[in-house]
Amino acid sequence: MRVMGVDPGLTRCGIALVESGRGRQVTALDVDVVRTPSDMDLAERLLAIYTAACHWLDVHQPEVVAIERVFAQNQVSTAMGTAQAGGVIALAAGQRDVPVRFHTPSEVKAAVTGSGRADKAQVTTMVTKILGMQTKPRPADAADALALAICHCWRGPMQERMAQAQQQADALARRHRAKVASARQVASATEQRAATGQRGS
Amino acid sequence: MRVMGVDPGLTRCGIALVESGRGRQVTALDVDVVRTPSDMDLAERLLAIYTAACHWLDVHQPEVVAIERVFAQNQVSTAMGTAQAGGVIALAAGQRDVPVRFHTPSEVKAAVTGSGRADKAQVTTMVTKILGMQTKPRPADAADALALAICHCWRGPMQERMAQAQQQADALARRHRAKVASARQVASATEQRAATGQRGS
Repeated sequence: MRVMGVDPGLTRCGIALVESGRGRQVTALDVDVVRTPSDMDLAERLLAIYTAACHWLDVHQPEVVAIERVFAQNQVSTAMGTAQAGGVIALAAGQRDVPVRFHTPSEVKAAVTGSGRADKAQVTTMVTKILGMQTKPRPADAADALALAICHCWRGPMQERMAQAQQQADALARRHRAKVASARQVASATEQRAATGQRGS
Repeated sequence: MRVMGVDPGLTRCGIALVESGRGRQVTALDVDVVRTPSDMDLAERLLAIYTAACHWLDVHQPEVVAIERVFAQNQVSTAMGTAQAGGVIALAAGQRDVPVRFHTPSEVKAAVTGSGRADKAQVTTMVTKILGMQTKPRPADAADALALAICHCWRGPMQERMAQAQQQADALARRHRAKVASARQVASATEQRAATGQRGS
């Protein structure tokens, strides 16, 4: 599976491409950080990030895009820009029918370090180790994008199976509820007929 | 001036087109609410909103797009989606070189009702009155998009003049600082030469 991992951001947006092999084997194919100056117009910054994302999607043709899920609670000042950057990347994927999946920062940390509360240095160290890289990826946004892609390689297939199982269970439950409802209707109709019959007699 | 006002949102996104005339005269040309179901994939929802925005921009050719500035503090649960929706609309404008401007909710309320803390009903009432509409625009997102466009018609030209004045002032200050710095260099070089001359004598 080819996963494009994205650590969204306006000032620095990490994008990475990781391919999963057998078991937990993962290989980094590419990683980059898109930067836009803070004094640039917001629309132009989004356009630069969107253009970079389109280029990555067209050149690398990933099967899925994994983006960090942003919460409004964290870092209020940058959360909006982060959400907007993630939004235009999700849009670029949607335009190409590439599914988009989200993982929370703690899911990503837990996947690569074993702890949901690992710090940036620990994430970078583990990413370097897992991917067998000679040097640590820099800046942290590059490491985070790689970590996101690794996280999806490992968690993604399980998540999809869980989602499918959930859908099947929902469908079964719906069918069962429909059956019960129709059985009840039949029963009440029979009762009514019986009551009318009694009254009629 | 033709202004496209946007009240961004994933579930309901208000888009309005308002034209300003002489003084404070404003005319509503069109208004609509783009809706996407909450059980739809985020990428598909953003794509639907982006496609609608592109259509509006291409058909109506506004001179400027005014979007509500979202704060992470308000309504944490929907703030991220709102930011993402606003992001893809800003992107659509950026792709067409249409400038994007932002106004805070209180700026919009103050512009149309006179009070930054007016409620939704007051905003709707004033928008209906200002635009001379026969019926109140519904839902509130439609009224908000109209209010944003009106706000920009009235505040925008002043804001642009202020921004230009600021830029000119900055340029003057830069030139002055450069002049002072070069004068200082000349002065210190002269001093140094004088000192060397004294030592040499």
